[in-house]
Amino acid sequence: RPEGAEEDPWQDEEYFGSYGTLTLHLEMLSDRSRTEAYRQVVLSNSASLRDKVVMDLGCGTGIISLFCAQLAQPSVVYAVEASSMADYTRQLVKQNGCEEVVTVLQGRAEEIELPERVDVLVSEWMGNCLLFEFMVESVLLARDRWLREGGIMWPSSAALTMVPCQADRYFSEKMAFWEQPYGLDFTPLQPLAQQEFFTKPKFSYLIEPADCLSAPSDVLCFNMYKLQIKDLEEMSAQFQFCVERPGVFHGFTAWFTVHFESLEKGGTAVELNTGPDSEPTHWKQTLFMLDKPVCVCAGDSIGGAVVLRRNPVWRRHMSITLNWSINSSTEETDDSQVGTKTFPMWR
Amino acid sequence: RPEGAEEDPWQDEEYFGSYGTLTLHLEMLSDRSRTEAYRQVVLSNSASLRDKVVMDLGCGTGIISLFCAQLAQPSVVYAVEASSMADYTRQLVKQNGCEEVVTVLQGRAEEIELPERVDVLVSEWMGNCLLFEFMVESVLLARDRWLREGGIMWPSSAALTMVPCQADRYFSEKMAFWEQPYGLDFTPLQPLAQQEFFTKPKFSYLIEPADCLSAPSDVLCFNMYKLQIKDLEEMSAQFQFCVERPGVFHGFTAWFTVHFESLEKGGTAVELNTGPDSEPTHWKQTLFMLDKPVCVCAGDSIGGAVVLRRNPVWRRHMSITLNWSINSSTEETDDSQVGTKTFPMWR
Ligand SMILES: [Ca+2]
Ligand SMILES: [Ca+2]
Repeated sequence: RPEGAEEDPWQDEEYFGSYGTLTLHLEMLSDRSRTEAYRQVVLSNSASLRDKVVMDLGCGTGIISLFCAQLAQPSVVYAVEASSMADYTRQLVKQNGCEEVVTVLQGRAEEIELPERVDVLVSEWMGNCLLFEFMVESVLLARDRWLREGGIMWPSSAALTMVPCQADRYFSEKMAFWEQPYGLDFTPLQPLAQQEFFTKPKFSYLIEPADCLSAPSDVLCFNMYKLQIKDLEEMSAQFQFCVERPGVFHGFTAWFTVHFESLEKGGTAVELNTGPDSEPTHWKQTLFMLDKPVCVCAGDSIGGAVVLRRNPVWRRHMSITLNWSINSSTEETDDSQVGTKTFPMWR
Repeated sequence: RPEGAEEDPWQDEEYFGSYGTLTLHLEMLSDRSRTEAYRQVVLSNSASLRDKVVMDLGCGTGIISLFCAQLAQPSVVYAVEASSMADYTRQLVKQNGCEEVVTVLQGRAEEIELPERVDVLVSEWMGNCLLFEFMVESVLLARDRWLREGGIMWPSSAALTMVPCQADRYFSEKMAFWEQPYGLDFTPLQPLAQQEFFTKPKFSYLIEPADCLSAPSDVLCFNMYKLQIKDLEEMSAQFQFCVERPGVFHGFTAWFTVHFESLEKGGTAVELNTGPDSEPTHWKQTLFMLDKPVCVCAGDSIGGAVVLRRNPVWRRHMSITLNWSINSSTEETDDSQVGTKTFPMWR
């Protein structure tokens, strides 16, 4: 890339370009936990959705809008999609006989114009570690511009959860491997391996519940009615984990859960949980590897803090800083028990 | 990329750049079938390798050179690597006490200078569908420049194998999926799916032996002593497959086998077979999907031809054209039984 060429800090060409192809949409649609959760939200609110005005932001193929039109009787669903997929979304709406109800609008959340405010703003905006790619900013902009007073946000709340964990297989495949492959000593490659495999978070990691060293803990909770775009610049939280079984502390694993409140008073909320105790989703989980594993015992505690800093230039990126200290339940401690590491994600 | 910027038709910056990181080397080293095959070649020829001069072209981390130095007594091994991995290869040679025997040379096959001709030229040059990325050209150049009269090539021969196959799961995940996801009709996306998933070959596909509709057949066989670079421009072959069981003909699957002849007269050759009856390798197999599946019966025959055309501009790329006609063992035939399709790989 030539020096001095202007680059878009939102990388929209790349971002919306990827959503113009089918691969990502197929991955999302094939994720039954994700898609059925949204279907369930519509289904369990179908009576209350009658005559409501709905916006489906970043609608992709339009699946949520089609659920609304087929399972409920909203007066209109504005299906908003910035990528070129919007042309196909229009065809799908027609093919399924929903063109009376669903209006497809191609454009970005900041630019679209609707003839009215909406009663419900629904969106599947979640990324890796909940926030990655920061589509949530578009949702908040749309909320402030188009959601009527007292309107409903789906999801209504979101939480980022973390847990200290063992990651034997990943550690052994990427790091221990070099110790004696085929009887040779390849340890001079370990610093390169650390750089290449442990510097950034590992996406698409599936942790076993048995590899959680402690009970998971929600480190960030967002109320989607109150969250402000400026809140996204820096988010931090303390944590305190009790180690429940002896093991090797290789790193932290993160995932998210979102809730969809009921339109009816006292109606039950729908939850989409992407953690290790639920069916795997296309998000899987995100692994943050320490540089050196630490042995821990049942009764030890792992305290510390996490800070998510949005990249001031590359607006879809952030870094995640973890600080931890291990307090041994036995007497001895040494300074290898304290650590800090910042993970770019990706810039 | 700016218009008019000069581009390298060999894409060497990208190609050697990727081999400067660990990910590809780890994938290759973790492939036990591949790496153990080369180890077995050295081990079963260890007596004959005594005092021989060896070149290991595109040595990567140097694993084959280290096998030579540790399992045999060659007089010298020239370990040639064009990527920046060469710096680490030098360290690994030292770490394993092989610096008396292994000399690491950073450079391309076309540029390196050796003080002598070699008795053995060993290389792991195989790519997807055997030829993809055309590292074989560097091997042939090195052979013509540096292999002494009567010297040995490892591999000594190579074959590309094809079979007509069923691919139910891939077809259903990428194409049938759109018929009724969540009770909706998404068939307007099928032309896009065909374009996106069936236009190019599918790499990293693992076929089950039971999904082969016929006995596989070697469509190309290369003698590594006689093969010429100009032979690579266009290669073609006829094929004739007998359908052995009723099924759905979704496409063709391709893989390769290489043989390493023994240095000893009458010694047994070592084989590395990447097909479905062998342990999966990191190459897996390559799937070529037809646009429309065809039902076939036991006794039908699938005849036709395959042509591999190297891209005249992008020298690491090629296209693969398949022509087929299905001769039914029963009476009826129609023109859907004949087909042709060209697959870019990748350009
Ligand atoms: Ca998403
Ligand atoms: Ca290769």
